Amino acid sequence: MHKLLILSRQAQEYQQSLKSVELPEIQIFSATDVDEAKALGPDFEIVFGDPRLMRDLIADLPRLRWAQSAYAGVELLLDPSLRRDYILTNARNVFGGLMSEYVFGYLLNHERRIFERYQAQREHRWDGSTAGMLRGKMIGLLGVGSIGAHLARTAKSFEMTVRGYTRSSESCPDVDAYYHNNGLLDFANGLDYLVSVLPNTSETRHVVDAVLLEALPPHAVLVNVGRGSALDESALIHALETKKIAAAVLDVFEQEPLPKEHPFWNTPNLLITFHTSAPSLSEDIAKLFVENYHRFVNNEELMYRVVFVRGY
Amino acid sequence: MHKLLILSRQAQEYQQSLKSVELPEIQIFSATDVDEAKALGPDFEIVFGDPRLMRDLIADLPRLRWAQSAYAGVELLLDPSLRRDYILTNARNVFGGLMSEYVFGYLLNHERRIFERYQAQREHRWDGSTAGMLRGKMIGLLGVGSIGAHLARTAKSFEMTVRGYTRSSESCPDVDAYYHNNGLLDFANGLDYLVSVLPNTSETRHVVDAVLLEALPPHAVLVNVGRGSALDESALIHALETKKIAAAVLDVFEQEPLPKEHPFWNTPNLLITFHTSAPSLSEDIAKLFVENYHRFVNNEELMYRVVFVRGY
Repeated sequence: MHKLLILSRQAQEYQQSLKSVELPEIQIFSATDVDEAKALGPDFEIVFGDPRLMRDLIADLPRLRWAQSAYAGVELLLDPSLRRDYILTNARNVFGGLMSEYVFGYLLNHERRIFERYQAQREHRWDGSTAGMLRGKMIGLLGVGSIGAHLARTAKSFEMTVRGYTRSSESCPDVDAYYHNNGLLDFANGLDYLVSVLPNTSETRHVVDAVLLEALPPHAVLVNVGRGSALDESALIHALETKKIAAAVLDVFEQEPLPKEHPFWNTPNLLITFHTSAPSLSEDIAKLFVENYHRFVNNEELMYRVVFVRGY
Repeated sequence: MHKLLILSRQAQEYQQSLKSVELPEIQIFSATDVDEAKALGPDFEIVFGDPRLMRDLIADLPRLRWAQSAYAGVELLLDPSLRRDYILTNARNVFGGLMSEYVFGYLLNHERRIFERYQAQREHRWDGSTAGMLRGKMIGLLGVGSIGAHLARTAKSFEMTVRGYTRSSESCPDVDAYYHNNGLLDFANGLDYLVSVLPNTSETRHVVDAVLLEALPPHAVLVNVGRGSALDESALIHALETKKIAAAVLDVFEQEPLPKEHPFWNTPNLLITFHTSAPSLSEDIAKLFVENYHRFVNNEELMYRVVFVRGY
């Protein structure tokens, strides 16, 4: 028997989803916070849920062998002060569709000037001016993992040209041109849209800096759906204030929630979306756990294992 | 030699596009209004351009054999008082991509609550509430021609379910279920989005009426990108005011520009977009003309011929 602890504010939803599946050799317990979890005892081999709660519990689980994060971001479990003697897997391949909805929702909002049309309507003014379009535009993806690949596919369905900047991989068929390493400024040159999907690692810190922003055309729009640390926030404020780029849409920030006194609240041509781009859908995440659990009991390699030193 | 008159406010753009192609046996003239056109004489066999201008000229072109409209809508040439002894072709298959950008831009705007997020930002309020998504939602297309087929394809790329309501055709592979004739209310039942792509004909007048709107779920959103005449405007105002449906996005109206005193300017949960959903792109339209011209000189059947009595 494997003892599983579901540790999440959504524990009940996950438990419901798991109940509808026949899982072998398992005993399932659930807790919505750490105190509740501690009351269930220390004997869990598997934890599934929220990395923030896991961080405060894993020291007290001597038999822990595997932790499945319900989110993509697992930074909180990567702190060098924490144990690393277990397998950590995160959620991947489930966010692509939602991320596409978010990114292309905002790209289309920009092209169709949806805010401006609404303003014209409020002023009772017939605004028949021609809208822009995604067709023929160039999008650059900083990071082409499973989310980036989904964005690339959606971009092609809107007849866009797609550039990808990656460490070395060139595996996505919907990317028209790949760039690596020193090719970052060539990658940026001529982009209509720059979308960062980068995770938070030591290598991705401030990849989007003043130099990169300067390399973009003045009509370019930046979207950040990866992690806030990939963006030099001061450099973006300067770029927007001096119109080096046209606009930005940020879902993630160096500090979340955004502090009350943060200049982003009032930065021109900036839309902020409060880390809502791709919620973890309990049903999808539960399905992913089930797949990994079958691998676990069969001693197969788990999917989406996080390499602690690499950070993703 | 075939004498072609380009008759459009964008005549110069069209002429430019045609110049880049080698067209056999043709003499090209252009005019941006009817007076200018009349000064060029009555000898034209072919007219290409704006139906509004054509309407005022065709009586004066005794040798007219073919008129290619640069737009999809050719109602103005269908008036029974006008001649019908020539071949009328309109623009099709070029609007699908732009229409998809428009429709899915507004659908995503609705799901992602882009206006509300922006309001939260203005109030310096961190709004981490979960957004909606297109995935799993049901879209119903009133009319599945080339535009409807493109919308269906885009809907599938967002993992939506697609219903189509047509007179009889069932040719689009991206439509999951077809409805015809008396099936209109079954078609409407359970839709999250109802999108009308219907042209203006005697049969489509007020297809979207109080009964159809009543058959939609209260969270449904109506989008009209076809023709204004397909919608009973009073019925929509009533449906929105009494929350029979959640919202509507209208690009087209019974009278355009919308009269100053029209109640739509102030109807709740209604967005109006001033007939901007899919501009005729001169390059695309010129390409379409070129294809048809080759057929014309070879005495082949022209593409996109409008049947006067049917109205499309």
